[in-house]
Amino acid sequence: MPSPLLILFGRRVREERSKLSLSQESFAELAGVHRTYVGMIERAEKNITLTNIEKIAGALGVEISQLLKESES
Amino acid sequence: MPSPLLILFGRRVREERSKLSLSQESFAELAGVHRTYVGMIERAEKNITLTNIEKIAGALGVEISQLLKESES
Repeated sequence: MPSPLLILFGRRVREERSKLSLSQESFAELAGVHRTYVGMIERAEKNITLTNIEKIAGALGVEISQLLKESES
Repeated sequence: MPSPLLILFGRRVREERSKLSLSQESFAELAGVHRTYVGMIERAEKNITLTNIEKIAGALGVEISQLLKESES
């Protein structure tokens, strides 16, 4: 059972990625993570590390703190 | 070589823990993480996961986004 924080974080990533009209695969390439990793994060199947949060936020063009602020509420 | 983000995050955790006058051991107990884990995070020796960031922020009494905001600059 994933934590509510991981679920909200995954949804936020999916929302922001969709705004950029990028597939999971294209987004993974942009972020420099494995292509299956993006789906796992969006579905809250994996507990993301801080350095990968940084990569994902960078690729989305948002601040880490901003991305997490909206996952906390 | 740890990433600058992990180094800044570790420093922020140490600063906030020191404000609470808690040893690494007492703080670990409060946060519900292993006692050696706190030192590893503070020294940027470990890439922290999002659910552990949540535990640490909760024990420090700060928002996750606030803790990370100050690690981004």
